[in-house]
Parts: sequence; structure tokens; C-alpha cells
Amino acid sequence: MQSTTRRAVVLLSGGLDSATCLAIAKADGFQPHAISFRYGQRHQHELACAQRIARQLDAASHRIVEIDLAQFGGSALTDGAITVPKGSTADQIGGEIPVTYVPARNTVFLSLALAFAETIDAKAIYIGVNALDYSGYPDCRPAFIEAFERMANLATRSGVRDAEPLRIEAPLVELSKAQIIARGLELGVDYGETISCYDPLDGERPCGRCDACLLRARGFEQLGRADPAAGRSGLP
Amino acid sequence: MQSTTRRAVVLLSGGLDSATCLAIAKADGFQPHAISFRYGQRHQHELACAQRIARQLDAASHRIVEIDLAQFGGSALTDGAITVPKGSTADQIGGEIPVTYVPARNTVFLSLALAFAETIDAKAIYIGVNALDYSGYPDCRPAFIEAFERMANLATRSGVRDAEPLRIEAPLVELSKAQIIARGLELGVDYGETISCYDPLDGERPCGRCDACLLRARGFEQLGRADPAAGRSGLP
Repeated sequence: MQSTTRRAVVLLSGGLDSATCLAIAKADGFQPHAISFRYGQRHQHELACAQRIARQLDAASHRIVEIDLAQFGGSALTDGAITVPKGSTADQIGGEIPVTYVPARNTVFLSLALAFAETIDAKAIYIGVNALDYSGYPDCRPAFIEAFERMANLATRSGVRDAEPLRIEAPLVELSKAQIIARGLELGVDYGETISCYDPLDGERPCGRCDACLLRARGFEQLGRADPAAGRSGLP
Repeated sequence: MQSTTRRAVVLLSGGLDSATCLAIAKADGFQPHAISFRYGQRHQHELACAQRIARQLDAASHRIVEIDLAQFGGSALTDGAITVPKGSTADQIGGEIPVTYVPARNTVFLSLALAFAETIDAKAIYIGVNALDYSGYPDCRPAFIEAFERMANLATRSGVRDAEPLRIEAPLVELSKAQIIARGLELGVDYGETISCYDPLDGERPCGRCDACLLRARGFEQLGRADPAAGRSGLP
């Protein structure tokens, strides 16, 4: 495929981090192609958010890929029988791998993004993983991202033929939640369109008490900004 | 999960190589759990073969995972508009990446096998890639398998907690097709239940002229054995 446009694939979940990532891919000069997954997650409201964010940030394309990870089980995010923890303290978050971890999720998502990237000749895949204000998932660590990048360049046609290797970009990996939000606001992200909750009330309103809600609230608080999505919260 | 049974996940396509792999996983002392993919391949007859092989070789379980790789395009195996090459010479096979290459296919399949392996606490994933008598795909090379294994052990819960790393086993990687067949016959594989063709006639009978058929025929010929599936061939 001959083109002067440099394409990137951006993993877009509908959450705060991946929305910021999409804005950063654009700021880095890429034409961003967003990819989301219907993977058996508890709440599919995040996919509606992903669609709105893709439009708001003017993604060149947005596709939703179906891949049922719930069939393998083992996570509170895909199995209604496992309870999502609520009301963790700051010390508890990230301390050990929580039940919300979905086995091999980022590996599967990045692999499908890689298949897409190869067919559109994209030079980068953006993923909004974060190793500071995060839930303690193994597949959010910088060492994982580096190992995936190395593998990806051996796996594909581009790794054999092209001079330029594919990059896996994780621009949020060393940022705090407050820093991520600050960067996104600079780049025009409307966080009112994002949802971070693991277990939303009525499937749409953030619960305000799961680890994802707590990390998000702390980020806006540290920045001294109101969360534009907070009006939708289930909290009084 | 506490158990003295050591489990392995085996990628099972319905072809000759992966059937042999399943038999080898058993011979290595693993309880084999087979995984196949309905990925938008031209002919789904191979999935019927995979089911029969799983039964014949007494796999502990067999699951077929749906993942539409055809949506990304870029391969003769998933796009009816791209012609499967026929009548290659031995020199042509493996010389460059052919149109039958499916972008990132083995990466996607191994990633889903990894998700499955993590939930059943499997210690190995078996994949029947082969770097000698093969079609020249980048994701069949030993360097790719090693890089995937390294990445997999950083990606998952087991890589953080367990002493024993997950192994990606590619026992056929250095074998010729004839050696693979000889090993499988020793282990009781019924190759009459396998299909290797990229483009079967009526969706079921091997064409006898694609690279996969030619490599298979050469293997049986070098071994001086008749292919038990040959009676089904479309050739006169």
C-alpha cells in the first residue's frame, strides 16, 4: 500500500486512558484507526462510549471486533458470578492481581490489532496501558509491551520485508492518572464521553466505588478539576 | 487449580501437522486440551477433521473458537477473490511469503490459546509450525515462537506468580514432512482423518495442486507410504 499518510491502530475501550491515547496518536502525526472489542465484558456501554469518542476525536475508522473471552472464564469482568471489589483503599489498588484481571486480554487485543495493522500497513499500535495508577494487571507492564513489540516484528510480513519496524506505543505507561487527564484536556478530549467503571449501575452509570472509579476520581481530584462524567455517577 | 495432571493446550487445525502435535503432547505426558478456530477460512471442512482427530486421539477437551480474521482481509485463505496458487515447483514453495499467508494468524491463535491455558493452568501450548517443509510464513519461524513464549510469560498471572514458566512447544519445527508423518504413524495418528489442502474441491476433497497438497504428497512419497486421505483426492 503506497501512501504518504502514516497510519496507526489505536485500541479504544471507551475509557479515559484509551481516549487520551487516540488523541496522542493524532498529535504524533498518525492517521488513527480505532479498534474496540466486544469480548463478553459485563457492560457493553463502554462500546457506545468508544463510538462517540472515535467520532469526537475524528478517527479515520473505527471497528468493533467480536471475540468471546468470557468462554474461557476466570475474570470478574466477564463472569457475573464473580463480584467486582468495591471500596479498596489506595494501598490495596495495584498490590496484587485482582479478580478483574481478564486472562491474556491485552495479548489477544494487541494480536488482533496486529492483524489489522498488517493489512492497512500501519506503522504503530497505540495502547493506553499504565503502570502507575493501575489495577496491578501483568499485561500492563512496560516489559510486556516491549516483549510484544519484539514478537510482533517477527510474526508479520512487515517484519520480514520492511525497513521500518512496527512500534507498540504505550504513551501513558509512566504517567499518573492526573497527568493523563491533563494531557488529554490539552488535546481536546471530552472526558464526559468516557466511562471507566468496572461495574456500572444500570449498565451505564459509574458505580463510584470500584478500583477504576476510585483511580479516576483521584486523578481529577489531584488536578483540581471536576470529572465531566461525574454527573452520571450513581453516587449521591 | 490443584492437580497432579499436567495440562497442555494444543492448536488443532485438522491438518497433518497439528494432528501429529496432539499425539506428541500426549506422548510427552500432558493431558491435551485441543483448540480450533473458525476464523473465516475458505473451507470449514478442516474443523470437521479437527473434531474427528480430537476424538481419535482422545483429547481431554476440544473447543472451537470463533474469530473472524476475514474482516481484516489480505489473504487468499480468507478472501475468495484472491486465487490460491496451484502447481508450484519445490523451489517456489517457501521462497517468499505467499498470498495464502493470513496476517498475524499464529499470533492471534496463540494469544487465544494463552487465554485458555491461563484459565486451566496449562503448562504448555503445542503448535505444529514447521520451518522446513513449509509455505514461507513469518509466523512459523523458531525466532517467532521463542519471542511469543517470552512475551506470554510476561503477559499472564502465571508469569508473575508461578515458578514454572509456560512453554510454547513447537515439536515439528525442525522436522521434514516425511519425519513428521513417520513420528505420527508411530504414535497412532490416523492421517485419513486429516486434510491439508488450502482450496479443497467441493469444500472437502484435497485439490492435489496447492502448496499444502504438494508438500504433503512429497512427505508420503519420501517415506514410501500411501496417503490414507489420498482416496478422497480430486486428482484422477
